[in-house]
Amino acid sequence: MSVFETRFQVRFGHVDPAGIVYYPRIFDYLHEVFEEVWEGHVGVRYDHLVMEERLGFPLVHSEVDFRHPMRFGDRPRVAVSCTRLGRSSLALRYRIRLAEELCVEAKMTTACVQLDEMRAVEIPQRFRARFEEIQESS
Amino acid sequence: MSVFETRFQVRFGHVDPAGIVYYPRIFDYLHEVFEEVWEGHVGVRYDHLVMEERLGFPLVHSEVDFRHPMRFGDRPRVAVSCTRLGRSSLALRYRIRLAEELCVEAKMTTACVQLDEMRAVEIPQRFRARFEEIQESS
Amino acid sequence: MSVFETRFQVRFGHVDPAGIVYYPRIFDYLHEVFEEVWEGHVGVRYDHLVMEERLGFPLVHSEVDFRHPMRFGDRPRVAVSCTRLGRSSLALRYRIRLAEELCVEAKMTTACVQLDEMRAVEIPQRFRARFEEIQESS
Amino acid sequence: MSVFETRFQVRFGHVDPAGIVYYPRIFDYLHEVFEEVWEGHVGVRYDHLVMEERLGFPLVHSEVDFRHPMRFGDRPRVAVSCTRLGRSSLALRYRIRLAEELCVEAKMTTACVQLDEMRAVEIPQRFRARFEEIQESS
Repeated sequence: MSVFETRFQVRFGHVDPAGIVYYPRIFDYLHEVFEEVWEGHVGVRYDHLVMEERLGFPLVHSEVDFRHPMRFGDRPRVAVSCTRLGRSSLALRYRIRLAEELCVEAKMTTACVQLDEMRAVEIPQRFRARFEEIQESS
Repeated sequence: MSVFETRFQVRFGHVDPAGIVYYPRIFDYLHEVFEEVWEGHVGVRYDHLVMEERLGFPLVHSEVDFRHPMRFGDRPRVAVSCTRLGRSSLALRYRIRLAEELCVEAKMTTACVQLDEMRAVEIPQRFRARFEEIQESS
Repeated sequence: MSVFETRFQVRFGHVDPAGIVYYPRIFDYLHEVFEEVWEGHVGVRYDHLVMEERLGFPLVHSEVDFRHPMRFGDRPRVAVSCTRLGRSSLALRYRIRLAEELCVEAKMTTACVQLDEMRAVEIPQRFRARFEEIQESS
Repeated sequence: MSVFETRFQVRFGHVDPAGIVYYPRIFDYLHEVFEEVWEGHVGVRYDHLVMEERLGFPLVHSEVDFRHPMRFGDRPRVAVSCTRLGRSSLALRYRIRLAEELCVEAKMTTACVQLDEMRAVEIPQRFRARFEEIQESS
């Protein structure tokens, strides 16, 4: 199994009065990383998917552990793997790390949806193969 | 002349590592106050305007003075007046105050736009009268 | 058992190109409702807690079901109950509804933390009684 | 005169129901570009400046023209020049472009502030030279 890896930056505006990342921001990071997965791993830009193909992946369920705070200036790495690839359901695991420290572990389950009708549809075959490449062995 | 008045809250997530409101947030406040002006003064909900009538007021020009910082827990008052009401152009002045202290003064010029074609259109007559009520005397 | 109830508004800037609330925004709503719980139910403003008493409740774990989308202009109700009240751990359940439709159900587990040292501390006794009032019977 | 140049991405969550960037987001972009100026041009990370040296540059005045909308997936370029370098005052001009189209032109005036006392101080000499390099000729 391989994982998709990328990196992001904790910006000035992401940090709260307690000096750590305001947690709703972490979900912004996860969405941006999801967009990176599409462009960097699947090979389709998410904006193209949404606006040309009218497919989207709204979130259905999320389960997140916040283990270690992130601070202004941190540049964490994220590793993304696939925990479940159903007919129209896609679950990804995100592990956000600073050096060896695991800061956040998130399991995000999305559904493949035709956006004009907001109706679940099958994940197109040409995308499945790419998610299988980062699928965790069961 | 009268003004439209409302109030907002500085939330935990709005404040930056320097302990004051992260300034892009102030533009969020201004947009929310703009939505309040529609519902509370003009008598039309902005969501109705955008989604049913397909009219919107994108920002064309802004000029803002940041005079005094706002902090977590502050509940500033805002006074809104109209500085210019053109054919399709609407300029509003927002004064954000804590007690007597002027924190922010913003002049925001918007254009009335038909959203499907993104084309400037005349501000409908039934709205003009309401903005005239809060228009500054020249 | 009683619950704490409040309401919020889906603003223009909260909605994504698919026409529904961008999910990281939902976590903003949850934090704002958490701030309301403190002021409206516990009787202490969260800003006072953070800035004067230097106590905070960073998120440790979240588990959220997104069942029904929310759109610009929606004004959902939220009911908050307590699912677990440990020594320094506080878990709240948030149910966001539009009319009878359950849109989001979130279980958010926080830890009571002394902010200067970022160290878990006991939830002060005067707050415990208030959370017991909205505690779900086991 | 030279300018500092960088680039950013319009993400899914930045776009409003009218299909264009929600304008408060543009001020987020401007702050992130400001952080890039520090790291990429001045040679000091802004997080280091804020957290180690306790210096910050809060916004005092902004004047922005919004000429052309940006959409999900756009990757605009930004050119930054210095319009005024006073004793403690720093004014930067940001020009955001898509191909040859000028989308946004912003003049942002900041003050160099010692953050613990929130008091204006002189811009340190080692930074002045770097801003002079991108200063517009008068």
